[in-house]
Amino acid sequence: MATVTQPEAGNTAAESNGDKSPGQFSFSTVKLQEISHLSDYIPNLQSLPNPLEQNPFFHPSDEFYVKSGDVIFRQIVYDLSGTLPSPSPDHLAYHRAGPRREVVFDPKTVRAAIVTCGGLCPGLNTVIRELVVGLWELYGVRQIFGVTAGYRGFYSREPVELNPKLVHSWHKRGGTALETSRGGFDLEKIVDSIQNRGFNQVYIIGGDGTMRGAVKIFNEIRRRKLNIAVTGIPKTVDNDIGIIDKSFGFQTAVEMAQQAISAAHVEAESAVNGIGLVKLMGRSTGHIALHATLSSRDVDCCLIPEMEFYLEGKGGLFEFLEHRLKENGHAVLVVAEGSGQSMIPRTDAQKQERDESGNLVLLNVGGWLKSELNRWWTRDHPGELFTVKYIDPTYMIRAVPANATDNSYCTLLAHSAIHGVMAGYTGFVSGPINGNYAYIPLEEVAQARNVVNTKDHKWAWIRSVTNQPDFERS
Amino acid sequence: MATVTQPEAGNTAAESNGDKSPGQFSFSTVKLQEISHLSDYIPNLQSLPNPLEQNPFFHPSDEFYVKSGDVIFRQIVYDLSGTLPSPSPDHLAYHRAGPRREVVFDPKTVRAAIVTCGGLCPGLNTVIRELVVGLWELYGVRQIFGVTAGYRGFYSREPVELNPKLVHSWHKRGGTALETSRGGFDLEKIVDSIQNRGFNQVYIIGGDGTMRGAVKIFNEIRRRKLNIAVTGIPKTVDNDIGIIDKSFGFQTAVEMAQQAISAAHVEAESAVNGIGLVKLMGRSTGHIALHATLSSRDVDCCLIPEMEFYLEGKGGLFEFLEHRLKENGHAVLVVAEGSGQSMIPRTDAQKQERDESGNLVLLNVGGWLKSELNRWWTRDHPGELFTVKYIDPTYMIRAVPANATDNSYCTLLAHSAIHGVMAGYTGFVSGPINGNYAYIPLEEVAQARNVVNTKDHKWAWIRSVTNQPDFERS
Amino acid sequence: MATVTQPEAGNTAAESNGDKSPGQFSFSTVKLQEISHLSDYIPNLQSLPNPLEQNPFFHPSDEFYVKSGDVIFRQIVYDLSGTLPSPSPDHLAYHRAGPRREVVFDPKTVRAAIVTCGGLCPGLNTVIRELVVGLWELYGVRQIFGVTAGYRGFYSREPVELNPKLVHSWHKRGGTALETSRGGFDLEKIVDSIQNRGFNQVYIIGGDGTMRGAVKIFNEIRRRKLNIAVTGIPKTVDNDIGIIDKSFGFQTAVEMAQQAISAAHVEAESAVNGIGLVKLMGRSTGHIALHATLSSRDVDCCLIPEMEFYLEGKGGLFEFLEHRLKENGHAVLVVAEGSGQSMIPRTDAQKQERDESGNLVLLNVGGWLKSELNRWWTRDHPGELFTVKYIDPTYMIRAVPANATDNSYCTLLAHSAIHGVMAGYTGFVSGPINGNYAYIPLEEVAQARNVVNTKDHKWAWIRSVTNQPDFERS
Amino acid sequence: MATVTQPEAGNTAAESNGDKSPGQFSFSTVKLQEISHLSDYIPNLQSLPNPLEQNPFFHPSDEFYVKSGDVIFRQIVYDLSGTLPSPSPDHLAYHRAGPRREVVFDPKTVRAAIVTCGGLCPGLNTVIRELVVGLWELYGVRQIFGVTAGYRGFYSREPVELNPKLVHSWHKRGGTALETSRGGFDLEKIVDSIQNRGFNQVYIIGGDGTMRGAVKIFNEIRRRKLNIAVTGIPKTVDNDIGIIDKSFGFQTAVEMAQQAISAAHVEAESAVNGIGLVKLMGRSTGHIALHATLSSRDVDCCLIPEMEFYLEGKGGLFEFLEHRLKENGHAVLVVAEGSGQSMIPRTDAQKQERDESGNLVLLNVGGWLKSELNRWWTRDHPGELFTVKYIDPTYMIRAVPANATDNSYCTLLAHSAIHGVMAGYTGFVSGPINGNYAYIPLEEVAQARNVVNTKDHKWAWIRSVTNQPDFERS
Repeated sequence: MATVTQPEAGNTAAESNGDKSPGQFSFSTVKLQEISHLSDYIPNLQSLPNPLEQNPFFHPSDEFYVKSGDVIFRQIVYDLSGTLPSPSPDHLAYHRAGPRREVVFDPKTVRAAIVTCGGLCPGLNTVIRELVVGLWELYGVRQIFGVTAGYRGFYSREPVELNPKLVHSWHKRGGTALETSRGGFDLEKIVDSIQNRGFNQVYIIGGDGTMRGAVKIFNEIRRRKLNIAVTGIPKTVDNDIGIIDKSFGFQTAVEMAQQAISAAHVEAESAVNGIGLVKLMGRSTGHIALHATLSSRDVDCCLIPEMEFYLEGKGGLFEFLEHRLKENGHAVLVVAEGSGQSMIPRTDAQKQERDESGNLVLLNVGGWLKSELNRWWTRDHPGELFTVKYIDPTYMIRAVPANATDNSYCTLLAHSAIHGVMAGYTGFVSGPINGNYAYIPLEEVAQARNVVNTKDHKWAWIRSVTNQPDFERS
Repeated sequence: MATVTQPEAGNTAAESNGDKSPGQFSFSTVKLQEISHLSDYIPNLQSLPNPLEQNPFFHPSDEFYVKSGDVIFRQIVYDLSGTLPSPSPDHLAYHRAGPRREVVFDPKTVRAAIVTCGGLCPGLNTVIRELVVGLWELYGVRQIFGVTAGYRGFYSREPVELNPKLVHSWHKRGGTALETSRGGFDLEKIVDSIQNRGFNQVYIIGGDGTMRGAVKIFNEIRRRKLNIAVTGIPKTVDNDIGIIDKSFGFQTAVEMAQQAISAAHVEAESAVNGIGLVKLMGRSTGHIALHATLSSRDVDCCLIPEMEFYLEGKGGLFEFLEHRLKENGHAVLVVAEGSGQSMIPRTDAQKQERDESGNLVLLNVGGWLKSELNRWWTRDHPGELFTVKYIDPTYMIRAVPANATDNSYCTLLAHSAIHGVMAGYTGFVSGPINGNYAYIPLEEVAQARNVVNTKDHKWAWIRSVTNQPDFERS
Repeated sequence: MATVTQPEAGNTAAESNGDKSPGQFSFSTVKLQEISHLSDYIPNLQSLPNPLEQNPFFHPSDEFYVKSGDVIFRQIVYDLSGTLPSPSPDHLAYHRAGPRREVVFDPKTVRAAIVTCGGLCPGLNTVIRELVVGLWELYGVRQIFGVTAGYRGFYSREPVELNPKLVHSWHKRGGTALETSRGGFDLEKIVDSIQNRGFNQVYIIGGDGTMRGAVKIFNEIRRRKLNIAVTGIPKTVDNDIGIIDKSFGFQTAVEMAQQAISAAHVEAESAVNGIGLVKLMGRSTGHIALHATLSSRDVDCCLIPEMEFYLEGKGGLFEFLEHRLKENGHAVLVVAEGSGQSMIPRTDAQKQERDESGNLVLLNVGGWLKSELNRWWTRDHPGELFTVKYIDPTYMIRAVPANATDNSYCTLLAHSAIHGVMAGYTGFVSGPINGNYAYIPLEEVAQARNVVNTKDHKWAWIRSVTNQPDFERS
Repeated sequence: MATVTQPEAGNTAAESNGDKSPGQFSFSTVKLQEISHLSDYIPNLQSLPNPLEQNPFFHPSDEFYVKSGDVIFRQIVYDLSGTLPSPSPDHLAYHRAGPRREVVFDPKTVRAAIVTCGGLCPGLNTVIRELVVGLWELYGVRQIFGVTAGYRGFYSREPVELNPKLVHSWHKRGGTALETSRGGFDLEKIVDSIQNRGFNQVYIIGGDGTMRGAVKIFNEIRRRKLNIAVTGIPKTVDNDIGIIDKSFGFQTAVEMAQQAISAAHVEAESAVNGIGLVKLMGRSTGHIALHATLSSRDVDCCLIPEMEFYLEGKGGLFEFLEHRLKENGHAVLVVAEGSGQSMIPRTDAQKQERDESGNLVLLNVGGWLKSELNRWWTRDHPGELFTVKYIDPTYMIRAVPANATDNSYCTLLAHSAIHGVMAGYTGFVSGPINGNYAYIPLEEVAQARNVVNTKDHKWAWIRSVTNQPDFERS
């Protein structure tokens, strides 16, 4: 994931004597990504000892609390041998997540709101549950509300009161118990409602569009100088959000995708010239397709949005499949939903239709590939048996409960968010960077993208697993 | 995982003006952990272009190869605010894993040996499979052998020839297709056999005892100045090996443990005063117990070897359970197998009996707890219903195939090892450090231990999940 | 299951001309097993049209209702060729289960009680759920109560009011939401409580001991001439109850047992001379062991209570295992918990200890076998590697939710019981006979036993699958 | 399944005295469905003692062998109370399956061929495996061949030699290891090939079209008076084959369908006005849809081919869904693929297109329903949120390995077929009737159909579970 960068110039000692021995180098600058704090615009904000001190179970040790100076480095791969140019743009540090010795909210006055927006993702219910249980058990908060039906729920629905008993087994259910929806973002109405209902902690769970909305809410709240903390918890089963190591639900999705790939493989190898075709989630990135392929060993070719491919001619998909069918009698294709969009004919209507983010609507690459495959075979091998079995497991994948790995992750994510909010941070996201939980400016996350780097090893590894062509026309 | 350390002194600019503004600091030293290379003792070792260059599928880009100066930083959490003492002992860097532009083995002359030692762990077969497929497909190696039955197999069994077709679906099977055993380590016989059979790459998969054996083999090979590379792939379902982020199979084990905990929970809540008791793997560390508890929400108390506990009296386990039974009518206990050893009466024979590593044999903490619980209840609540259901799922956990997460991991692990060996590194281990694959001296890994830090957050998180006592007698 | 019987004599036409051509034969007698009805001792019991007539969704057709003369034949296998002796003792017919055109309870006055007793079994919660939903939705009953903690709950606990919303997802949970216990049977107190609380329908779910208790309750209620219907729903994961085709939860148990057998197989084949040993439920019958073995293909030998076996000497278990280890390097044993009891040394205390049914307590055949195997190998193969991995998956099997097959079955079972009770039948059990639901006298079920017939095909089939010895000393 | 019939007239004793007391009745005729035997057209066929007699493991007891007069009754539900009309047409008996004391094949001369045709079904590989293992282990047959790629494989492919070692773990794989295809039926070529290759036992696994082909093969073989036995093993995941209790793979399919229904339920309840729509297999029958609905509790409406339904107006689907959405906020629909065909607009091309059996091609009821639902909502509730999530899990269901229940069933099915063929029966099918394995004339099975009886209880049960409308326009 991390790319190799060279340490920056400016090590004068080393430079002067040219002694660039490995193990000797230095930094002059690490850029700390600051996050907002309620005290930035609320004067005289009172702070209190962390209520965890009163917890009968904790007896927090000295090492327990995170200090305000604790940071996580984003860059951890360096080239010690190189000549030293200017600092890498990635050479950043982030505040470490975790409980602070002092908080700015009195638990008795906290009114927390939790909302989920956008499509389903394994772990949504776990995050909700852990926000509720964490606020309640750790900090003694007693007023916790679920805003249902997404952003529009702030102004069109009555919030639901939540407590540990109610949410007790939500982590064993897929989907979101708060319901979700797309769109419905009306900034004024939402902030008015937050204000009117007296919420002072707002936890917003959703994808990149939702995070951009959260930035607006945070800015408006700051403009109004309200004592309300806002935090975002990024949800994207596609794992296409940047900076953080991975998004929750992703591992569960990769796990479930195995089932679809296995089925495609069985269908393919049980037929004469059988092709199993699986479309996996990934509008703009191929992470699920890539990891599902790496985890399985039944895939002959994996197509992702980050990579161009072509069908006909030398080095093309048909030639490759021709070869595999001759060799093995069957083949399995995995295609991310955002792949090949430029190759699919678009009707005039489809040239106009745009999704809520303003992008052209995605065309169905699976259906298109299936018909192209059949067209090719009928043309080139008339009369010979051939079968394409096409599987789209999307809803069966994203609707399952989180697995153990994701459940742990969602727990730590929710607790990190709570600690940050209680300490008065706002307009931030919590998430793991190099395995350590950090606080990241909300705006930065809303804009960051995580795409598969087809130049580095991981993609090479896929290709070594599948031995598929690289579709680089020579 | 990483602990907070302070950056070192020596930032003269900052020091001189006392301006310790966050974002301004520097290092003077990073200690690079060097690994051995065949050229250290083989003079005039020829190097060749990486055979990947000839691969019809790769067209490696410039970014593809890892340079010899690329390193991974182990420490990534810093305290920017503190005064700056001397460097942390953990302030280390490791060589980055990955393909090198030049290799020292001609694939045609490679004879690789793979051996598995010790107990089962999910993913063993995936590692073997990927070593075979990686050597064969990436580098064109054609002589790959499995040494069966562990270390003793080197001198007492005929090795089995392996190829991609044979190992094709091994990753879908639990256990090890090469068989395994404990002990049987006879240094002279093993190295003689390696030499006699003409093996020049040796891949050793096993636990800490096995790694210590691998160090001896590596040292003996170096002493004999043999052109043979040795690499270790640490296997420990307990996740008790240090330096690397986690060991393969661990996530699968945590996943499977959920099933046992669920069963214990069902048994407990279906009975009157029901206790569900689950013993999980973890001889000296509680990682599986801790993560399984974090992932589940059905556990009332989690006991691990890193933590003392006691049964009777104020703050003890019985008092806590009494409370939970009164409140909920049932309770679930998770106990790591190495917990409570000092409390279990040991017979004279057991005082003598030691395992192959020379430690006192572990006593069955599950059976002991079950009988202590029954004794307590009968004494304090005569005539009242009470049930303890004790589940030991060990073999049902460790015998499953790796899940998708672990399968990906095992693939990257195996390929990392292959790249290192082909490049001539020896006496090393490959593994992820902060999410990036690195090469680590074998000896360092053989001695490192990864224990649960009961002082830091993660343990606090567990306690917040379970609200269990901290067993610190006041 | 059914054994071959010959049709009875008395076909005069056929007899007179000696023309015993296949396809020509006759019965003179079928014995109908009558069940009790409230009208047997309640005079002037009013009957009403079935409330289903008013259901907005049903529009019951003529074929929908079961007539009082509809019966199910138990015997369906005959030998047409034989000479014709007197009728078989099994030549019985049972009333068919299903909705009757008339009922004797006005839904508005029904107060139903549901209780679960004894050990866990997959499907318990489904049966409870379907009783509640069926009474509520089909018949409009609104007063439905759960008696918790087994028989003793009738007189020591407050019953819990149940409704469809509350029980909505109980079928997805293992165990019993009503809690269960053994013993606690106090006839007077129970019937007094039933009477005092105004229950007029009692649904009792439990094993053979529970069914014997239900007979007593039914008799006492009849003695007191109370207008209260009692029905039993037999629960035995062992499938050891006679007359009915199989008991609920059994298929789920067989399914789950596969996991333990697979693990044992993996452990065995990954070791040198590895034995995997799995103990499965089955106190007096080997149905689970037998079906689990038939469904798996990894078992070398299956030992059940219906069959004697021995360890040493020609034709013994050790000789057989010796052979298998030589041939395959490993072996898997499945043993039902009630097997081999006569061979295990019993301490003086154990000679006294009896379970609640008065039988000698079962000794742990798994632990005994494991130590006998180790003893044998050390004696006969000193110094050679050998491993026995012993798995007891009992609680992990019985605590899972019912699978789809069992969920369907539990639904039909519960609805059959409701239809019978509403129609006024009492002292009966409903269950499938040859695939059709029937009403069977409670007393008959309480006494019937279903053992594996080691003389017939199914056992032969097992032996052909495993090729195991028949342990018949010649 | 069995329908109620009245016992036949002609019981003179009972009739004469009018004493129609329950428990007294008689039959005059049972129609035995005879099956063909090689001796019907091969004169002087030698018979031999069953080779099982020589098996070192069996020691068959007297009860072990099935006698030629042993039959299974198909009708087991009777109305004892009615007046007695003429015999029911269903009043049939079938030969009981199982080993015979004498066989007509010398194992040393047997050459068995196994072929799979048509679509995938869980358990196919288990049937193949058990035919191979059963012939080999039970009867000592050593020449067993797989014909690949369906019927066309007889004349266009080289058969594959099979043995127990090769097929050892096939039951753990989905699909068919022999490959399959549709069509390719060329009677002359097939029978010529059977004759030329010297096959004398032919096991044909496939659906109703395949069974009709098998009848032709059997007839042609009989016409040529060849000493070749032919048996059919009906495969239909839809469970639409008559006479036998159920077809293999069906239970596994119902089990897997739960996953799709759960996902649809999660999607529906997580959305505002969410509809989850699942299309399940069932071209002409709704068994899978019905049983999957009965096993789940998340379905609001189940639509099957045996039942008409309509969308608009009173009592229609839209009205019902309107009601459910208002009540619960979401709804789940399950639709069998053959439902609603008469309502879906058919293009001119689709009016011509027919499948290989000559039926009009099935139109996609799932896609049609989804668009009708959207059309309805947009029309009646403009501007209101609404979501239909449509899941077609077909390939993910049919490609899984058989579960334990189906694995047992496939074993008994395969062994029944082997026993019949070895005994010289031909042109038959083996399958369970009322839970007992019987031999049925191939032609009868090829024509029988098993449809859901929407008049009887089971369908009523579905409706009580879902409380769905009966779509009977009043």
